[in-house]
Amino acid sequence: MYQAALIGVTGYTGMELARILATHPAISLKYATSRQESGKYIEELYPFLRSYPIGQIQITDFDAETITKNCDIVFLAVPHGTAMNTVGELFQTANNLQKKIKIIDLSADFRIKNPQVFEQWYQIPHNQTHLLTKAVYGLFDIYEEQIKQADLIANPGCYPTASILGLYPALMHNIIKNDIIIDAKSGTTGAGRKAQVTSLFCEVYDNFRPYSLGGKHRHTPEIEQELSLIAKNEIFVSFNPHLLPIERGILNTIYAPLTKPISLEEIHTLYQNTYKNKKFVRILPLGKLPETRNVRGSLFCDIGLSLDTRTQKLIITSAIDNLARGASMQAIANANLCLGLDLETNINFAPVCP
Amino acid sequence: MYQAALIGVTGYTGMELARILATHPAISLKYATSRQESGKYIEELYPFLRSYPIGQIQITDFDAETITKNCDIVFLAVPHGTAMNTVGELFQTANNLQKKIKIIDLSADFRIKNPQVFEQWYQIPHNQTHLLTKAVYGLFDIYEEQIKQADLIANPGCYPTASILGLYPALMHNIIKNDIIIDAKSGTTGAGRKAQVTSLFCEVYDNFRPYSLGGKHRHTPEIEQELSLIAKNEIFVSFNPHLLPIERGILNTIYAPLTKPISLEEIHTLYQNTYKNKKFVRILPLGKLPETRNVRGSLFCDIGLSLDTRTQKLIITSAIDNLARGASMQAIANANLCLGLDLETNINFAPVCP
Amino acid sequence: MYQAALIGVTGYTGMELARILATHPAISLKYATSRQESGKYIEELYPFLRSYPIGQIQITDFDAETITKNCDIVFLAVPHGTAMNTVGELFQTANNLQKKIKIIDLSADFRIKNPQVFEQWYQIPHNQTHLLTKAVYGLFDIYEEQIKQADLIANPGCYPTASILGLYPALMHNIIKNDIIIDAKSGTTGAGRKAQVTSLFCEVYDNFRPYSLGGKHRHTPEIEQELSLIAKNEIFVSFNPHLLPIERGILNTIYAPLTKPISLEEIHTLYQNTYKNKKFVRILPLGKLPETRNVRGSLFCDIGLSLDTRTQKLIITSAIDNLARGASMQAIANANLCLGLDLETNINFAPVCP
Amino acid sequence: MYQAALIGVTGYTGMELARILATHPAISLKYATSRQESGKYIEELYPFLRSYPIGQIQITDFDAETITKNCDIVFLAVPHGTAMNTVGELFQTANNLQKKIKIIDLSADFRIKNPQVFEQWYQIPHNQTHLLTKAVYGLFDIYEEQIKQADLIANPGCYPTASILGLYPALMHNIIKNDIIIDAKSGTTGAGRKAQVTSLFCEVYDNFRPYSLGGKHRHTPEIEQELSLIAKNEIFVSFNPHLLPIERGILNTIYAPLTKPISLEEIHTLYQNTYKNKKFVRILPLGKLPETRNVRGSLFCDIGLSLDTRTQKLIITSAIDNLARGASMQAIANANLCLGLDLETNINFAPVCP
Repeated sequence: MYQAALIGVTGYTGMELARILATHPAISLKYATSRQESGKYIEELYPFLRSYPIGQIQITDFDAETITKNCDIVFLAVPHGTAMNTVGELFQTANNLQKKIKIIDLSADFRIKNPQVFEQWYQIPHNQTHLLTKAVYGLFDIYEEQIKQADLIANPGCYPTASILGLYPALMHNIIKNDIIIDAKSGTTGAGRKAQVTSLFCEVYDNFRPYSLGGKHRHTPEIEQELSLIAKNEIFVSFNPHLLPIERGILNTIYAPLTKPISLEEIHTLYQNTYKNKKFVRILPLGKLPETRNVRGSLFCDIGLSLDTRTQKLIITSAIDNLARGASMQAIANANLCLGLDLETNINFAPVCP
Repeated sequence: MYQAALIGVTGYTGMELARILATHPAISLKYATSRQESGKYIEELYPFLRSYPIGQIQITDFDAETITKNCDIVFLAVPHGTAMNTVGELFQTANNLQKKIKIIDLSADFRIKNPQVFEQWYQIPHNQTHLLTKAVYGLFDIYEEQIKQADLIANPGCYPTASILGLYPALMHNIIKNDIIIDAKSGTTGAGRKAQVTSLFCEVYDNFRPYSLGGKHRHTPEIEQELSLIAKNEIFVSFNPHLLPIERGILNTIYAPLTKPISLEEIHTLYQNTYKNKKFVRILPLGKLPETRNVRGSLFCDIGLSLDTRTQKLIITSAIDNLARGASMQAIANANLCLGLDLETNINFAPVCP
Repeated sequence: MYQAALIGVTGYTGMELARILATHPAISLKYATSRQESGKYIEELYPFLRSYPIGQIQITDFDAETITKNCDIVFLAVPHGTAMNTVGELFQTANNLQKKIKIIDLSADFRIKNPQVFEQWYQIPHNQTHLLTKAVYGLFDIYEEQIKQADLIANPGCYPTASILGLYPALMHNIIKNDIIIDAKSGTTGAGRKAQVTSLFCEVYDNFRPYSLGGKHRHTPEIEQELSLIAKNEIFVSFNPHLLPIERGILNTIYAPLTKPISLEEIHTLYQNTYKNKKFVRILPLGKLPETRNVRGSLFCDIGLSLDTRTQKLIITSAIDNLARGASMQAIANANLCLGLDLETNINFAPVCP
Repeated sequence: MYQAALIGVTGYTGMELARILATHPAISLKYATSRQESGKYIEELYPFLRSYPIGQIQITDFDAETITKNCDIVFLAVPHGTAMNTVGELFQTANNLQKKIKIIDLSADFRIKNPQVFEQWYQIPHNQTHLLTKAVYGLFDIYEEQIKQADLIANPGCYPTASILGLYPALMHNIIKNDIIIDAKSGTTGAGRKAQVTSLFCEVYDNFRPYSLGGKHRHTPEIEQELSLIAKNEIFVSFNPHLLPIERGILNTIYAPLTKPISLEEIHTLYQNTYKNKKFVRILPLGKLPETRNVRGSLFCDIGLSLDTRTQKLIITSAIDNLARGASMQAIANANLCLGLDLETNINFAPVCP
């Protein structure tokens, strides 16, 4: 059994990590930390985990030395800015103790490879730039081999996961122009578990609203960085998110003009081939479109393809569970890989539908 | 009091018409018809209308002569195809009886001015083409004067209402290119009250899905016809609808490249000026975006404006209540106008929020 | 036009008061106060009220003198404890200015006639006990005459409104034993607009839970006080609330053993007779049961009657909109009455269904 | 691998059986039948199961011989009335073929041991009364040993599962009087996947309603039969169901007067002892109450205990996932047991929260 620590157990990504680890056969949670809930047992915070051994873990304050000494892997579910410091401290401690440690960081701190770009979008300077090259972007469908070797994994953002997987084959094969619109819709777990009026039930239920339109959302540079690497060309996207009155789920509707005449059938074949051995990306048959419920509680990314023949635009729709594939279950998948476990260990859950 | 008939009371638009008419001070519902519910009282079908006089109306079969003789206005909430025959029969009967009658048709049958286009999209020939020129498109913010004179009003579709109002100022002033993407999201009342598995609670709740992507939805030609009239140029749109797990509400996110450099402030002023005296279109301050709940149960269309400066695209967001503004309350507004009543009679409801 | 002030505009009851006052033809909102939002315009806080004159009111701090001088009526939508002080200050100021003022207090502070009982349940001493006898309990279906004369109206709680209206005929006619169980279910607006984790969308949606079971909820003494007055006997109830994942709506299922053999038909007649001229209580036909959506956004209380013949228990089901009938619309009804307006002024809204 | 057939794959219980079987390591689905969907692949019907081998199973018509020959176990997810005939035919065929077969019947047909009671409540005569004694009631927490030996398992109803588990310790230890009220609330999957207006999204969402009040629901005799067996005394309950606007989940609030003075702490200990080795029943600490989300997608039944000291009533709250614990996951648990597998095989899923 690998021993794990979970730093920041109180948010929705921490909650989902605890949920998946509760039944993991090869990774055992040893420490869960939280400044505000220190002293409580996990089952007090999350009564749904009562009766699992994980429920009996007492939440503590973060202590780098204890964790480094006793753990093989650390999951960081803390805000950006905090994460980089924790990563720095953990690796420093590990170095001092001559101990090897793997870190899966669910924040944005090590996703953006260019620290200037990071500072521009996140409004804080990066203070661990020496670790940036060490970090591997944890999209395992594309970077599986690098993840297996990595010590530090920058777990992808939820919107970027759905956007990149949706655009990867089209950009790699150069069939769309650099004029991409991503109309993204996310469930409310994406807004976090912070007590704020805008996230109250009565402000979200029976409502739908856009936010951060026109390229203001911080996932924009992450998406552009990864798409540019794929396209071997600097890609710009107009990324526009909306808030759905559901708990889990992202559905992206992606519009891009074709570079040349190509049939929808050819595009479909190209997508199928690209993801041929990638179990967790499902290219739907032509005529079928993804739905968030079809991936709920699972690691799947479902992709549908349509063509607006009247305006010659390719319309790619991609759906994930933002909390599972877009955060915590993807983190466990990455943990499995970098620990040498089988990718599918405890992440091959059938979607919960209905 | 004007006397009214409601043909097709069993769907959601019929239900909403009955709801609004229940408290209308100048239009009195005299007949409500339905083949399948004939004999029942409205309050049996719609217990929320119990205690209103309208609840005591007994649903009957449709009889053109009785209705024409006794009514000033007829609301048609029947499927397309059926509507055109009923309109034909009513006008014929009125002609025979030398009686004047006003008709508000909530179906698509008289919205498309070109019968070939109608047939192409609706897969049935139009058999009342002589009435097409008589019909006025019932978007009262634009066609108020024509509506006042009209005998036959083609009440706009829900998606077209939100789309056209959102694009009207931009196209009229020629600030956007003919490369428009409408990413539309609608509440489930838009799918009708027919018993079908895909509309079941457990198929819609906690889910989000696209449908009819790539220009396959029948509202496409209606939107294009009206936008072309505004732009004085043939406009094509890529119209792409999605189903929201809410009851009422449409939010359209509309993308279009600018024709020339223009600031967001200038665009905002242009929008405000265009709708200066139009009470039921609200141009939000810059930085604010529409939400479906802000228009729930009301006639308002809220419009937000954003600019993606990185990709030079104007992003227009427009929100309406699909059942109220997108169908039945708009129908009552049109009825008010063509009967010579004040536009605002019994339609100036504050949105129901939360 | 009567001039009104709204103290505490930021909660859901304040929001709903503003919403209804926005279209009131005889009461004009002059002041809206809030410590935390002072300086903002109502339409900034509540964009759904944009374009109504009320949207242009600037929120201020509370100032007893300004309000007393310029207003005929004051609505208090502040927490219990705060309310009693404000009421005291307003009446004192009015006295000093020799001005008459009406107050509708939506808090619990003047509902409980016995200050010891108040202190026991609310954990604070009552410091305006001299005003307790002045206060009229604002359940207008029962106390209409007293309300018309009142200067201070204790607006009923949401659960008590549904409970008392459901039990009134049965207790008045002594057909049930003093062994009453109220299984109550409320929408989440009842939990208020305070930022707290337990009210977050993702903690409430797709969930259902009981709380304060076994007579711990503060509405218990209010219900018992009013039922005891009706029964002319000290009544105890087992009141047990649950939280529904909906915005508006309370449905109470009330169980009580019969005192003597009586048919359901007789009970039904008795209920109909009791509420014969009470427009806003609707006794459903036998076989029909209330639903929260049938009263959404309205002042109606729908009551259904069932008999468990196997266990000889009367089962009364009553449904209201907790925010409208259970708080703010009831407050406006009370304001109408005590200002000498027609009860129905701007409160006769048809329920918003669906 | 045991081979299984699923008769009636198109409803929600069939859907959930397919979902759980998709990842079962020791039971392999070989046949799935449906009259209306015959010929389709499971993944066409349930796209969320795409990429699982189960998705590639082609739905067929029911054929008793093929199924009996090739299967070890048959799950029946067909309506009552139909089920008894299918069970009869399968056992007859097995007899003819001298083959042993296990049947898990999710309908009500073999739950009621007295055929007169069955006929009275279900309005059809029982035509396989010789099989009634063969059937074991599949509540494995209580009847585990009998289930292990059984060939025919009557899988419990959803409401009965939550009701019986909630009342079992109290009745077994005789601490409550025979005056039990069950106020039950269920998610909408309980209403089935049939296309009917009352189950439409817009009829259920943002709504709450009671139905079949006063002992009219068919689960009443099932609950009473099992409670009577536990109490060794004829028990009557007033069972009153309500429809929740959620997909999965039942929460029962159960009221019963105490037979004698006993503290809540003693009751709590008694409940804990009764379920000491029963992993899938969780007795919550005093002061905690169950929530449907805490058991979503899992086999857990959470039980909370409260005492209304003012009226001396015990209040038991029990929560399950009606589709998982109340139907299909419980069916798989029973299948595991009667096939000689470990109870927990592929049913120990952590609840999906949020």
